[in-house]
Amino acid sequence: MKALHFDGRLSLQDIPAPQPSRGEALIRVRLAGICGTDRQILEGYSGFHGVLGHEFVGEVVECHDARWAGKRVVGEINVTCGSCSWCRRGLGRHCANRSVVGIINHQGTFAEFLTLPISNLHEVPAPIPDDAAVFTEPLAAACEILEQVPQIEGIRAAVLGAGRLGLLIAQVLRHAGAHVTLIGRSVSKLSLAGSWDLKAIQFDSPELRPRTFQLVVEATSSPAGLESALRLVEPRGTVVMKSTFHQAAHFDTAKLVVDEITLLGSRCGNFEDALQLLESDSVYVTPLISKTFHLDQAREAFEFLKNPSCLKVLLAP
Amino acid sequence: MKALHFDGRLSLQDIPAPQPSRGEALIRVRLAGICGTDRQILEGYSGFHGVLGHEFVGEVVECHDARWAGKRVVGEINVTCGSCSWCRRGLGRHCANRSVVGIINHQGTFAEFLTLPISNLHEVPAPIPDDAAVFTEPLAAACEILEQVPQIEGIRAAVLGAGRLGLLIAQVLRHAGAHVTLIGRSVSKLSLAGSWDLKAIQFDSPELRPRTFQLVVEATSSPAGLESALRLVEPRGTVVMKSTFHQAAHFDTAKLVVDEITLLGSRCGNFEDALQLLESDSVYVTPLISKTFHLDQAREAFEFLKNPSCLKVLLAP
Repeated sequence: MKALHFDGRLSLQDIPAPQPSRGEALIRVRLAGICGTDRQILEGYSGFHGVLGHEFVGEVVECHDARWAGKRVVGEINVTCGSCSWCRRGLGRHCANRSVVGIINHQGTFAEFLTLPISNLHEVPAPIPDDAAVFTEPLAAACEILEQVPQIEGIRAAVLGAGRLGLLIAQVLRHAGAHVTLIGRSVSKLSLAGSWDLKAIQFDSPELRPRTFQLVVEATSSPAGLESALRLVEPRGTVVMKSTFHQAAHFDTAKLVVDEITLLGSRCGNFEDALQLLESDSVYVTPLISKTFHLDQAREAFEFLKNPSCLKVLLAP
Repeated sequence: MKALHFDGRLSLQDIPAPQPSRGEALIRVRLAGICGTDRQILEGYSGFHGVLGHEFVGEVVECHDARWAGKRVVGEINVTCGSCSWCRRGLGRHCANRSVVGIINHQGTFAEFLTLPISNLHEVPAPIPDDAAVFTEPLAAACEILEQVPQIEGIRAAVLGAGRLGLLIAQVLRHAGAHVTLIGRSVSKLSLAGSWDLKAIQFDSPELRPRTFQLVVEATSSPAGLESALRLVEPRGTVVMKSTFHQAAHFDTAKLVVDEITLLGSRCGNFEDALQLLESDSVYVTPLISKTFHLDQAREAFEFLKNPSCLKVLLAP
């Protein structure tokens, strides 16, 4: 099968399709999405070598459990041991023995096929088209904030970074009842958010006053984002950190201590929450698609992503 | 009156005693304690110039409210406006218009006298001697963790830094039912903790395994402490940040995000909680006193504090 392989350099390779073991499904990828983390891996994040990619929608083409055969699915990216203390507590995302699709020790989704344990699969409801279902994983990551922050309804929330993830997070927070301000640099991305009636303003807008938001979500993918988030959050407020990058951030911890800020690291979320939002058409996702490339053009797709006005790029095998 | 003044350099000065306005008390300082924050102010933290110091026990010598006259008191260090949204919510510690004794715009306690609003005062119960009462403010700061972390009883907690504050925090967490490991560098400080039956080990002990503590309290007063705390805390665990220092910390935010760590800034706490611990003799404080200097020798006291085995240094006017 064709697959986009990274081993320090990116190359399209012809490799054997993976073989599902018992308990796994072989999935034909219908669409895959490129995420900021994929770009960070190219910079050295996680040290991953192998087939890249973790966002996808596909169909099960082989599985010992006949109930899954032919089903259209999305899949959780953490492949867990099922027996460690984390798994037993229902926190498999933190399983110490986990592999992570396209990130740690598990072949990714930028390929014609991948394998996943059946327990990772979620059937995609029929009303959700492929080009929306492919957003399930990042949308679930946005939904995770609702599980971590006890009070969302009615609060003043800022989302820093108007990229792929920031645009999803802003919508998820608004849907949960927050008064959301999306803060970005790209005129086109802010305009897109504005067309959804989201308040969307520039980083240097004079409207932005320090210490005014109860919740700030950092989704800039930049080490400087944390410092900005700490400037905007009010005392006793919460900063949710979503960006992962292959660099250390530095910040003035005195601000965190004196203002008694809560800083929450936030990663993967619940797929069912995301599928519900997609099925009920509660968030815009397909307008985020800047371009869909054939897998053969995957390297060009990564080049295309460097365009600062680019949002989601999809790969179709 | 004599007072220890800082204006870029430290000097003992003879200045007029402050005059209490209506609603304030004039307090004669009986004992004052030097805190890590005072040393940070000498390095530039908070930009404060004036009479240093915020820890004290004293007696009211002048007050329009006769009920306070002659009382032995300790005092909250945040002097609040009483009318902003923070004050109205009972969070005066975060009052945007606040001054802070010896830190922001309010003369400190390294002097013969200070003034404070009556509403900042707490009478010291008779059984608590002066040399214990002077620990009320830092002990309250340790107690603040109990208000911020919902579950303490039975958890594995590490306290990083066996200094003045770390030794108080370790005791407060143990008293609240945590299984505490105090981690430090100084043999004498760790021995002191050991003599209180606290588990106290070296930073480089092979016993310390990454990702093993549910709660890690960072009290090292060093920018490197945060990185160590993030190494020791388990996924979904909590790091409480207590150190304030005049430098930026840098750390790998990916660890925070991937392990979904909660990082809590923590500053001042409830004085009544601290006074109760002192009155019930539930924590050791007087063994922390390395030396008491007369206020005339205040500069020597700051020199003495540089000794790495030194713990609390008191000043007696």
